[in-house]
Amino acid sequence: MRIVLAPNTFKESLSAQEVCKAMEEGVRRAGFGGEVVSVPLADGGDGTIDALVTVTNGRIRSVEVSDPLGRPILARFGILGSGDTAVIEMAEASGLWRLRPEERNPSKTSTKGTGELIRAALDEGVTNIIVGIGGSATVDGGTGMAEALGYRFLDSASNPVNPNGGNLTKMSKIDLSGADGRIRNTSVRVACDVENPLLGPDGAAEVFSPQKGATVEMVNQLEKGLENLARLWEHDLGYRVADLPGAGAAGGLGAGLVAFCGAELVPGFDLVAEPAGLDSALRGADLVLTGEGKVDASTVYGKVPSGVARRARAMGIPVICLAGEVSGSMNTLHGVGITTILSVVRGPANLESCMQNAAALVTEATEEIVRLWLSVRGP
Amino acid sequence: MRIVLAPNTFKESLSAQEVCKAMEEGVRRAGFGGEVVSVPLADGGDGTIDALVTVTNGRIRSVEVSDPLGRPILARFGILGSGDTAVIEMAEASGLWRLRPEERNPSKTSTKGTGELIRAALDEGVTNIIVGIGGSATVDGGTGMAEALGYRFLDSASNPVNPNGGNLTKMSKIDLSGADGRIRNTSVRVACDVENPLLGPDGAAEVFSPQKGATVEMVNQLEKGLENLARLWEHDLGYRVADLPGAGAAGGLGAGLVAFCGAELVPGFDLVAEPAGLDSALRGADLVLTGEGKVDASTVYGKVPSGVARRARAMGIPVICLAGEVSGSMNTLHGVGITTILSVVRGPANLESCMQNAAALVTEATEEIVRLWLSVRGP
Repeated sequence: MRIVLAPNTFKESLSAQEVCKAMEEGVRRAGFGGEVVSVPLADGGDGTIDALVTVTNGRIRSVEVSDPLGRPILARFGILGSGDTAVIEMAEASGLWRLRPEERNPSKTSTKGTGELIRAALDEGVTNIIVGIGGSATVDGGTGMAEALGYRFLDSASNPVNPNGGNLTKMSKIDLSGADGRIRNTSVRVACDVENPLLGPDGAAEVFSPQKGATVEMVNQLEKGLENLARLWEHDLGYRVADLPGAGAAGGLGAGLVAFCGAELVPGFDLVAEPAGLDSALRGADLVLTGEGKVDASTVYGKVPSGVARRARAMGIPVICLAGEVSGSMNTLHGVGITTILSVVRGPANLESCMQNAAALVTEATEEIVRLWLSVRGP
Repeated sequence: MRIVLAPNTFKESLSAQEVCKAMEEGVRRAGFGGEVVSVPLADGGDGTIDALVTVTNGRIRSVEVSDPLGRPILARFGILGSGDTAVIEMAEASGLWRLRPEERNPSKTSTKGTGELIRAALDEGVTNIIVGIGGSATVDGGTGMAEALGYRFLDSASNPVNPNGGNLTKMSKIDLSGADGRIRNTSVRVACDVENPLLGPDGAAEVFSPQKGATVEMVNQLEKGLENLARLWEHDLGYRVADLPGAGAAGGLGAGLVAFCGAELVPGFDLVAEPAGLDSALRGADLVLTGEGKVDASTVYGKVPSGVARRARAMGIPVICLAGEVSGSMNTLHGVGITTILSVVRGPANLESCMQNAAALVTEATEEIVRLWLSVRGP
């Protein structure tokens, strides 16, 4: 008999690998003597590097890059066990968490650090790059990222323009003569689960820039800048990407990765599940345990538990989802194949104590639920 | 297939019957189409009347009796569906909850109201009486109860003594000439899960009277009074009960019921489970759901979930226990036959919101857990 452990991170408390470890302890305490396979997962957001490096037995690299305001920082990326694939999280370099609240200003910030991470990955000789986006501090359409890869941006007098959100309106030409040629021979796939286009009321400036510190005037300026950039992409690079679903992700970095790097936007879960080897772990398994910090009706959209459930259901395997917090109706989640969804919390308790005890709570809940499964299924 | 629902009350939030209803809703939502049998239970404490009246389709009676300080109140007792058995909770008449904090004073309080309930039950023509004790405001050795049944207490000058905790030392003789003869032809069984003797460091005065409002001086006085009463029981009634395990329950009412009414002290769970028909509901069942407001290691001692589990285990039936709050190690509870113990709480939350939503939480957790059981077991 085989039990597969395939959780996401419990955000801000346990990595996916730590959840696996806590679950395995519970499975063993319940008296299960069969095979236990851990597949720590991620959805392309937080924890994607750690999950993929752990599950493929890869390695972490740390390099000096630019933070969203150009200051030097150390940022991580991963090389998968196969050696031919890198995994990058844009938030490592260009995330909002890198700035103090008063520093947040998407007219000043740039994705240059993310481009530097891509360059560092290319230096490792990889032929595939997985990029997790989300949590960005930027609305620069990926121009900062492109700069780090050798692209230059010129104004109408052919003077160079420093790429950031506020300067997008000043750009008249993209100079690709110095662009790093390796990027065109590399498969770049971007974990993207939002459908937002680049422009308009559902676009990068309107929807996402206020949470990054944009004022009302700034939102208008950023919108004009992205419109201008979309024209340049079409004219100078031959890419029409503004209407692509996901183009507006991460302040237009989604679109920028397509236009500057020939990237493909892919649902984040699929991008992680494939190199993680989820399908082969599931084949022939008897039970799957998944989990996530918070589970609600929106979990059906591109989150780990629903991704796991869709694949497990196709193979007829029951799926148990353990969460720190469960809210709202579970009907849609049952509908995609999750058998049982339960919180690991043991009674009225505050958030801090639950997060501090998260590993023990996951172990205890796993033990209880696997005991039931074993008692019905037989050893 | 049959699922049996056999929970205790979730104290201060749901009666056992309400827990059954919430569980049944969850069982049905999970898609179970078989037989569901509800056996609301109690352990001889809070909720015993309601559980037994509900499950036997009996009736509630309400009568005017004395509160612990002699004031008139309305108190309930139950007549089981068979018509020959009454169920009384001493706390209905003589409970600490009947007094404001500043009124609590075990030298003044009396179990007279409990005796009046017994008399009212006898008036209904029953031949069996089940008495739940616990939560008492009294340390009168059941002398108040006895007074209501016609016993009289005399001092050394043969003047009548008003029975209460403070007057126990003044009693020189028990006059049983006026005692209600019906009580000797009635089987009285007392739900008692404590082992405390009447006297000494583990006795009624030392252990329980401070929480009923006794000062240090009062504790000494009550101890002397109970010693005196034990001598009178032996001399005047021929009962040596002070050392009986449970004699010290409810301020000596345990011993008093034995001495004055020929009662038998019985584990509370057994006393309820038998008339509730638990064994016949379990016979041939496929799954049992039990539950209690709080579950911890002490739940093995005479509580509903462990009582249910001991019986179910003997029949090879898996037992799921749902609780408002679970704490500590579950090993001993697994040891008595509970398969799985889980909290119904869905994440970090405060006590009030959990109690307000208790029924919905029980329904949701039941649905999730029964879904798993069904998915493994098959429909």
